[in-house]
Amino acid sequence: MIAPTRGFPDAEFRARTQRAQDLMARRGLSALLLTTEPEIRYYTGFLTRFWESPTRPWFVVLPAQGAPIAVIPAIGSHLMSQSWITDIRTWNAPDYTDDGIGLLAATLKEVVGSGGDIGMAQGLESHARMPLGGLDALRAGLEDRRITGDAGITSWLRRVKSEAEIEKIAQAAKIADRAFARVGEIAASGVPLSAVFRKFQMLCLDEGADWVPYLAGASARGGYGDVISPATDAPLEKGDVLMLDTGLVWDGYFCDFDRNFSIGDPSPAVTHAHHALIDATRAAFDLAHPGRTFAELHSAMDCLLGVGAEGGRLGHGLGMQLTEGPSIIPADTTILEPGMVLTLEPYIAMSEGKIMVHEENIVIRASGPAYLSTPASQDIRVL
Amino acid sequence: MIAPTRGFPDAEFRARTQRAQDLMARRGLSALLLTTEPEIRYYTGFLTRFWESPTRPWFVVLPAQGAPIAVIPAIGSHLMSQSWITDIRTWNAPDYTDDGIGLLAATLKEVVGSGGDIGMAQGLESHARMPLGGLDALRAGLEDRRITGDAGITSWLRRVKSEAEIEKIAQAAKIADRAFARVGEIAASGVPLSAVFRKFQMLCLDEGADWVPYLAGASARGGYGDVISPATDAPLEKGDVLMLDTGLVWDGYFCDFDRNFSIGDPSPAVTHAHHALIDATRAAFDLAHPGRTFAELHSAMDCLLGVGAEGGRLGHGLGMQLTEGPSIIPADTTILEPGMVLTLEPYIAMSEGKIMVHEENIVIRASGPAYLSTPASQDIRVL
Repeated sequence: MIAPTRGFPDAEFRARTQRAQDLMARRGLSALLLTTEPEIRYYTGFLTRFWESPTRPWFVVLPAQGAPIAVIPAIGSHLMSQSWITDIRTWNAPDYTDDGIGLLAATLKEVVGSGGDIGMAQGLESHARMPLGGLDALRAGLEDRRITGDAGITSWLRRVKSEAEIEKIAQAAKIADRAFARVGEIAASGVPLSAVFRKFQMLCLDEGADWVPYLAGASARGGYGDVISPATDAPLEKGDVLMLDTGLVWDGYFCDFDRNFSIGDPSPAVTHAHHALIDATRAAFDLAHPGRTFAELHSAMDCLLGVGAEGGRLGHGLGMQLTEGPSIIPADTTILEPGMVLTLEPYIAMSEGKIMVHEENIVIRASGPAYLSTPASQDIRVL
Repeated sequence: MIAPTRGFPDAEFRARTQRAQDLMARRGLSALLLTTEPEIRYYTGFLTRFWESPTRPWFVVLPAQGAPIAVIPAIGSHLMSQSWITDIRTWNAPDYTDDGIGLLAATLKEVVGSGGDIGMAQGLESHARMPLGGLDALRAGLEDRRITGDAGITSWLRRVKSEAEIEKIAQAAKIADRAFARVGEIAASGVPLSAVFRKFQMLCLDEGADWVPYLAGASARGGYGDVISPATDAPLEKGDVLMLDTGLVWDGYFCDFDRNFSIGDPSPAVTHAHHALIDATRAAFDLAHPGRTFAELHSAMDCLLGVGAEGGRLGHGLGMQLTEGPSIIPADTTILEPGMVLTLEPYIAMSEGKIMVHEENIVIRASGPAYLSTPASQDIRVL
């Protein structure tokens, strides 16, 4: 197995920046202010797990022309200097007097003319990764420049992936495929679910994951109560449905899909539910050609499963984050485009408030959809 | 090895809530609005890796009296209902018309009287995990209630850990101890650093970690350029200093410490630097009695290492997050109290812009400091 090349050529970051700047010009934005990990990485390539530490804010200013400017804690200077970014301004964070706000305000005033608008993400799935107090101080320090919305520019651009991005997601999915194929080595009646979780993460790493940011799942008779719980120490029992849902990372890109297993022979209800989930997934897959909408994918699955609009989303975008927009919900009329990567994630209601969920990862090509995960067979796998 | 009990008795969450409410009363706050993972988990015990998904905002309202109220996406209802929280209000997120803001505003208006102040974290190390647009809409929907700062109440309370919290951090540290003891199984000249990273995470899981949110490090001759980089595929070479810094989690609590290894015999400079780092750690440890300050810990290390105030922090609080306040910097005059858990993390400048960093985890007891990590010996370990 030959892994794709790590990182991206500088040209890719330059192209992303230029596309953002074209949209900024149309929307009258003099700069974007980026504060979150995926926003900053998207334009700079700055890849570190240090975001796990909440202590320090990090800023990147994307001006109307030219390369982004990093305004970051000194601890990140060495790593950022290995990116294509050359204008790197640092302060010694944490600084209880001024934790980067003065430096950031000066930078923004340098690149944004009087009366100019600075865009920050403010829509769905976004947040500002900086203290609210710092944001107030920044606003006060910008004189007659104004912080406004970013017109969704970065999230818009991120929806369509480049070939290099798709390769990384595909690599992550292949690694998860191989780990799922080995679940029989670690899961059986009597094994605590917590041990299955630990060992499944080891399988993911053994098969080539850089790290495993996400694993959720459950094991319970006839379905499970939710899909976001951590493991308990309860042992698997015959008749359980074991579900493992992983988002592992390769070179900063996620896969996100799950697999269901029956511990011993499945009940007819479980057999039927798994068939229905696979049928729904296939129906959405078959429909997922450019020009169709996310709402239509929802409809294709829902008419087989009957979860309704209240049922939450049945899939989502995927890439630098475990979940990204758009969402497969009736209200999302985003049109599918070549280069979009998404999950199909139907669920079905079982008895007693229980559910089962299935998930695959696909990429939209000009010619139609293609699986990135190896699609599960209609029959639930028996352990 | 007997693991501590998972979770907390409800009494612990009630006590945390009551302590917050006592402080809120003193500061004239009618409610706290919590939006981030550690804030919400601190008062509710809601533990899930689903925060990895940025799609949905989650809210908890801590009123002036009584238990917290969860205002959360329906997908989290089942898991939240297993906590001590009984008032759980949900919406079907993502909702493109109103993503929980209306429900949140109604809840806040119910528990906060006319003219009341609602506290949100706004200081260092904080952010609001919700869209800025949602925050604007919330402010507009609150009529004459006002969103203001939280007076640092939650971060203040979190600085002193309960015995149950300390047990969990100690458990995480013991797991990392055992993984570090096995580094000789996975690291040697010729092995790519990326393979060492993957296998070290497997060791952490094998020794009992629930998951491994953080691993950084480096391997380079005579020291390394920074401490936040992900691995490259470059092989370890004789003369390298290999550093691995992990934050692994047990039951939602982190350890955070590193170890340095010499690939083959160390140079005199590396030997000396490691001695100096251990000496500095011991000096800070010996000083770390209740009544001393974080600034004094900095001074104790810095007078041996000479990094100066510009050198960044030399340690920090630790618990539900990889890094927490307070910070070991000259400006932090926080007084050490029994129950505080912190890292001592001195670094030393080597030649050519390289550094070496050492880190241990300690708890402050009434009688003085105690190590949670097994302290490294003065001589760098040779592989």
